[in-house]
Amino acid sequence: MNRSIVLQLDGMGPLYRQIYRAFRNDILTRALPPGGRVPSTRTLANLLKVSRNTAVLAYEQLLAEGYLETRVGAAGTVVAPVLPPDSLRPHFSESLDRQRHTVSRSHARLAIAGERILKAARATIDSLGLPSLSWELTPPRLRYDFRPGRAAFPDLPYALWCRLLGARARHATLRDLDYGPPAGRWELREAIAARLRRLRGIDASPERIVIVNGTQQALDLISRVLLNPGDRVLIEEPHYTGARCVFMSAGAKLLTSAVDNNGIQVPKVKRRAIRLAYVTPSHQFPTGVVLPIARRLELLDWASRVGAFIVEDDYDSEYRYDGPPLQALAGLDREGRVIYVGTFSKILFPALRLGYLVLPEVLVEPVVATKAMGDTGTAILEQLVLADFISMGHFDRHLRRTNASNAARRNALVAAVRKEFRERAEVCGANSGLHLLVWLKGSGGGMIADVHTKAEKASVGLYGVEAFYLKPPKRTGVVLGYAPLPESEIREGIRCLAAALK
Amino acid sequence: MNRSIVLQLDGMGPLYRQIYRAFRNDILTRALPPGGRVPSTRTLANLLKVSRNTAVLAYEQLLAEGYLETRVGAAGTVVAPVLPPDSLRPHFSESLDRQRHTVSRSHARLAIAGERILKAARATIDSLGLPSLSWELTPPRLRYDFRPGRAAFPDLPYALWCRLLGARARHATLRDLDYGPPAGRWELREAIAARLRRLRGIDASPERIVIVNGTQQALDLISRVLLNPGDRVLIEEPHYTGARCVFMSAGAKLLTSAVDNNGIQVPKVKRRAIRLAYVTPSHQFPTGVVLPIARRLELLDWASRVGAFIVEDDYDSEYRYDGPPLQALAGLDREGRVIYVGTFSKILFPALRLGYLVLPEVLVEPVVATKAMGDTGTAILEQLVLADFISMGHFDRHLRRTNASNAARRNALVAAVRKEFRERAEVCGANSGLHLLVWLKGSGGGMIADVHTKAEKASVGLYGVEAFYLKPPKRTGVVLGYAPLPESEIREGIRCLAAALK
Repeated sequence: MNRSIVLQLDGMGPLYRQIYRAFRNDILTRALPPGGRVPSTRTLANLLKVSRNTAVLAYEQLLAEGYLETRVGAAGTVVAPVLPPDSLRPHFSESLDRQRHTVSRSHARLAIAGERILKAARATIDSLGLPSLSWELTPPRLRYDFRPGRAAFPDLPYALWCRLLGARARHATLRDLDYGPPAGRWELREAIAARLRRLRGIDASPERIVIVNGTQQALDLISRVLLNPGDRVLIEEPHYTGARCVFMSAGAKLLTSAVDNNGIQVPKVKRRAIRLAYVTPSHQFPTGVVLPIARRLELLDWASRVGAFIVEDDYDSEYRYDGPPLQALAGLDREGRVIYVGTFSKILFPALRLGYLVLPEVLVEPVVATKAMGDTGTAILEQLVLADFISMGHFDRHLRRTNASNAARRNALVAAVRKEFRERAEVCGANSGLHLLVWLKGSGGGMIADVHTKAEKASVGLYGVEAFYLKPPKRTGVVLGYAPLPESEIREGIRCLAAALK
Repeated sequence: MNRSIVLQLDGMGPLYRQIYRAFRNDILTRALPPGGRVPSTRTLANLLKVSRNTAVLAYEQLLAEGYLETRVGAAGTVVAPVLPPDSLRPHFSESLDRQRHTVSRSHARLAIAGERILKAARATIDSLGLPSLSWELTPPRLRYDFRPGRAAFPDLPYALWCRLLGARARHATLRDLDYGPPAGRWELREAIAARLRRLRGIDASPERIVIVNGTQQALDLISRVLLNPGDRVLIEEPHYTGARCVFMSAGAKLLTSAVDNNGIQVPKVKRRAIRLAYVTPSHQFPTGVVLPIARRLELLDWASRVGAFIVEDDYDSEYRYDGPPLQALAGLDREGRVIYVGTFSKILFPALRLGYLVLPEVLVEPVVATKAMGDTGTAILEQLVLADFISMGHFDRHLRRTNASNAARRNALVAAVRKEFRERAEVCGANSGLHLLVWLKGSGGGMIADVHTKAEKASVGLYGVEAFYLKPPKRTGVVLGYAPLPESEIREGIRCLAAALK
């Protein structure tokens, strides 16, 4: 084709997804008319100055979703003459009220930061394969759903939690019903400080602990306080997309460092002015590998040399199957560089929306100020119930039991993968956490085509690791969450998957 | 004095408070040494190019708190030789951990936005007379505390709420324990939409409603989505300081419009590019006056002509003592300019942290994206309990009862003020809400000196209206909250106050 193509890339996340979104947008708005031709992948790669593989990945997605079609012969690839039915803007149902909205487009321009947040959110939803921001997490539709990130619901001592909740609610004082301190109730901050000292080797007074509405708020607060647009942030490759979204929203420049069998590789060359590094050392997300002590010390040394803060996201650290957990970065930190993020979403349940930050002294006041301005403080009742749950010893007991139950699930999964796939699968990150990563080899050792579609046909829910990369790998990897699944379903699910992929 | 003085004003809030903070800072850091002289108010006013009154107000505060002292004779005013004991930095107790924090000051610079938030927060806390961000709202120390903004705790059907809470908790499904939709659970959005249609004349589908963690989060979300630094925001004078804090944090330029007996005066002259106006039409905070329909229409017309959004903070609107509530701005809006903010903090209780936004269509996706990135969504359980509370009719019943109880309290307060103060007091804003404003006349009709100190000696807690102004008024006004007080305490408190002020 000789005609040039103008694609508006939003700069958010992996290139092949930016290209996919730009095409989808132009197709939906008819800028690219139905039935019209689009360049070959080679031509597209040349025009956009990207690798051929990137162009191929973008087109694969557009073809799979029905935006593009291939024609036999010289016609090549075209925009589908009939667009897929659920490509209509999914935001509003037909029952939307009839209020006239005449606010013009120019009037409805967003703030620069607001526009950036919106673009980052759309890109993130897109990478995760969710339909829109109005999605509801429905119960898994598939029989064997290995979605990562879910809590170990079967292990939850929920009746006990409800009893404690009822007791605290009924005995609430006026103070418990009024506005609380922005940093959280002291009882909970104390309880957390005590556990961190005992179990993670972190010596922090409760004053340095701030209660937040989960990990996402922790990351957002840090971002608001520390990041100017253009600041450089180092992330693992692959990494947690929720964190990527926050940093992109702040307009940060993302730099990646590859993850090997021991976690993030500490950059050797001194890079200019890295503002902060975001790491998941206890159970790397999504590969699951653990950062050993030697490398933790290396990372701290690196941060000291370049003057960076380190955000240590310690999600899942309590689940450890081979020996006790390693001392947290925040416990090894001698300079006040580490910002520690903890959550109760996995140990308890996500709907609770409770997590915490352990902050270097210099950041306490700015973060508490931002929290106060953002929502005046986290809701009180559940903070008090959690403080009781911890101080009465229920938390430790629960942790021991759920650790044992998840160890059994993990064993079942690893055994099933080894039995069904043998040398065609490499298991990664099984030593801790609630998910692991499996690299699958296709025939000839290459990637497996259409692995999700094949799995879905066998009623197995699989989640590809490529979503968590900025530059997708050339291997087929799937992240398998196993926390809420009975062992029998784990075994059966892997068996069905292996049969589907033969 | 001939020596020049260099004061670093932080640009946040009323001028006299900026000057106060700058002096306090220089005194604490010994830039102004103990015992050293400071300029007279006339000289200071000349040097800083402010009014004499502004300089006087700043010095009054510094003298009252013991940072300055007056000397008889030629020596004038000096820095106190011995500083007040609680002037030490209040953030950390002696039990702070011994971790060395060698992070240098330059390394610990905050992001531009982070610095702005911190300054705005400090200024706000300062205006409200709170010691620091680590304050805990203690139960009132004074016998008759008229602190505004408190819920009508005695009216709360709390045992019923606890029963509903327990029932919902015990019957939670896996879906109820998992991550919820960022915009909130549909049941609650539907219940709110139905009430708004019936009671506020707002015709909005649930899709335009977003559940948030209270009014503060609503304002913060709007600010992040819409405001660039330098954008112009119109606020009432006087106004709610929590909103001022959010807009200052965003770097907005605040413009004020005076409030008269009918609420905010709609600007006559077309001002350049006002991005949004923040108003409290149902019960102006803090004067309590109600914006009549004619002026609501005027305001909407003005917004249309200048291209502004209007943020309608409808707190307290359910409490109305003289006839039914007026139709909300959001119900009169024909152009999608009004952003409606509602809260359950006063009708139920603040520790719940539940409120909502009703958004113009164009803002739904950006706001939900920002909410999702900020905390993934509000905690689930209480959303469901509230939906039940509303749909089972308990909310309406509760509202009828609490309205009647507060009407009685209001009557007692107004009668007591009239009896004890007669023509020396003017009552304002008694028709709705949970507080009213009383202008007090001193002898000769001027301001009353040291009104708070005198009241405190009589164990009466008073809250001056000047905190809510950018340019403080030349009258003595006190905002009296009465919701949680028994009628007998109201009468007795006003009697003690009158005696103290004689």
